[in-house]
Amino acid sequence: MKILITGGNGFIGKRLAERLLELDTLQLDGGPSGRIEKLVLLDAFPGDRIGGDRRVEVVVGEVSDRETVARVAQDADLVWHLAAIVSSDAEANFDLGMKVNLYGTLNLLEILRATGKRPRLVNASSLAVFGGDLPSVVTDRTDLTPKSSYGTQKAIGELLVADYTRKGFVDGRSLRLPTIAIRPGKPNKAASTFVSSIIREPLARQATVCPVRPDSAMCLLSGRRVVDAMIRAMTLSSESIGSERTILLPGFTLTVAEMVAVLEKVAGREATKLIRWQPDANIQRLVDSWPGRIDAARAKALGFQADSNFEEVVRAHIEDEAVPQWWRQ
Amino acid sequence: MKILITGGNGFIGKRLAERLLELDTLQLDGGPSGRIEKLVLLDAFPGDRIGGDRRVEVVVGEVSDRETVARVAQDADLVWHLAAIVSSDAEANFDLGMKVNLYGTLNLLEILRATGKRPRLVNASSLAVFGGDLPSVVTDRTDLTPKSSYGTQKAIGELLVADYTRKGFVDGRSLRLPTIAIRPGKPNKAASTFVSSIIREPLARQATVCPVRPDSAMCLLSGRRVVDAMIRAMTLSSESIGSERTILLPGFTLTVAEMVAVLEKVAGREATKLIRWQPDANIQRLVDSWPGRIDAARAKALGFQADSNFEEVVRAHIEDEAVPQWWRQ
Repeated sequence: MKILITGGNGFIGKRLAERLLELDTLQLDGGPSGRIEKLVLLDAFPGDRIGGDRRVEVVVGEVSDRETVARVAQDADLVWHLAAIVSSDAEANFDLGMKVNLYGTLNLLEILRATGKRPRLVNASSLAVFGGDLPSVVTDRTDLTPKSSYGTQKAIGELLVADYTRKGFVDGRSLRLPTIAIRPGKPNKAASTFVSSIIREPLARQATVCPVRPDSAMCLLSGRRVVDAMIRAMTLSSESIGSERTILLPGFTLTVAEMVAVLEKVAGREATKLIRWQPDANIQRLVDSWPGRIDAARAKALGFQADSNFEEVVRAHIEDEAVPQWWRQ
Repeated sequence: MKILITGGNGFIGKRLAERLLELDTLQLDGGPSGRIEKLVLLDAFPGDRIGGDRRVEVVVGEVSDRETVARVAQDADLVWHLAAIVSSDAEANFDLGMKVNLYGTLNLLEILRATGKRPRLVNASSLAVFGGDLPSVVTDRTDLTPKSSYGTQKAIGELLVADYTRKGFVDGRSLRLPTIAIRPGKPNKAASTFVSSIIREPLARQATVCPVRPDSAMCLLSGRRVVDAMIRAMTLSSESIGSERTILLPGFTLTVAEMVAVLEKVAGREATKLIRWQPDANIQRLVDSWPGRIDAARAKALGFQADSNFEEVVRAHIEDEAVPQWWRQ
């Protein structure tokens, strides 16, 4: 099988690629099965490459570029579409967000349609499709009310994937992802990036800033669970998903204060003292517009799982990133 | 004031233009007010022109064409965006639907944004944004689940208008229109066109076909009420609409059998005998996927009104179109 991951040099793209290479073989319900022969990672930025695996090809290019995408997508059996301009960046740079998030998705869908092979597609969407005056618990039937350009573009992507699927052009499924934490590396331009920073930086004995109030509630999912969900979404048969092609993923909700309490439990007061509380009205406004609690009944029935607690997520980060445990000395 | 109506040669566009010319002056809450100096009707097809009014300019061109739209939109204070490829046509001709309904709307929004004048925009959407497994009553908070390419493109239009408004590029408001009945003239390529045909043709002593079961329920609004709604939507201040820029319009629901009963009441058995019942599975499927009953609480609070009964709508059609009343002889 030939696989394309757009945004393949991002955090989730790389983790997903590593998992796929380990698996080596995929068994898809009602779809193609077999060994992974080729794995193309398309990304606008050359990241740390996955070294030395002859199955991997890294292509640096834009998802909105017709020739590049046509070249990498024409023989793909499976596509994970993760490339995106993230929330704060899409808000600050409207045209860039439209180019990548809207026209890039349209470009990919048109090229996949033109192959005539109805490839299977997992499209990354986001809880940012919700906003404004939300019910206390967001469900599978909560209406789309994005209050950011990123959320708008993601909502449009969901609608397009559903219609291209209904028309038989692709076999698409979209996942509405909660905030992913803890991301390794450096802060990105997502408004939610602080959720990772306020844990990751103190664990690395570095100072950090928390731009929102301690009582701000966030719905989270760990990188490990997101990769599980990406593979599960690809594995499910088209029939088991049915006519609604967007799946709201389960997350677990906690406040920033609760996250910091877990950090203190794991790494002590020396760690939490590295957080400086410095409110940013723009980020607070965006975070407040996102859903707090989620009832993802449909995803759970389809076998998607949330993390059980935040301490597990923090300890997984320490393990996955081999964080030196200075607080134990 | 300078006004642009896209789809200005269509049924609603023309009726709206006539009403505006009669009004001569518009008073907009929190917006520009004054005399109408210029009224540009942009349409892909040259229809019956509104003759002889020096304020009117008819421009034949595509809403997806950048140069044409830039020319007619650059000095517009108010824009009604009605141009669309209708439901069955957009389903049969996917690329054409995308070109006009999606790229055309994007083209218009980008050109209005580039003027830097934040023009006021009323965007025509449709109940076709709903579909599939719907609640028995559709409300202001029912989620977007289109099951047609037309409905998908209209849903995307709503999202774009909302985001361009939030960003301050336009002052937009979208109206979700019920099926409009009774349209004059000839059947169009909307799946709902039969709703007009089964009344209009018998009233003109012509045979017609009804492609759906008598118990099929439809939510309707008359042409007169739609024009009222178009003007009301433009008149409302941006603040009174608030952050949710799409307004679900009220309609009145009745079955095809009930419509035919009204026809019989007005024009007798000779009229209803002109209807041949010939089921069309595709049209039935589309009609079944649309909402039957609507609770448009928000629109009612904002002063939008539905018709009170179907007989009034039929009699208004006879009056507006000066239909010869052969059944009275």
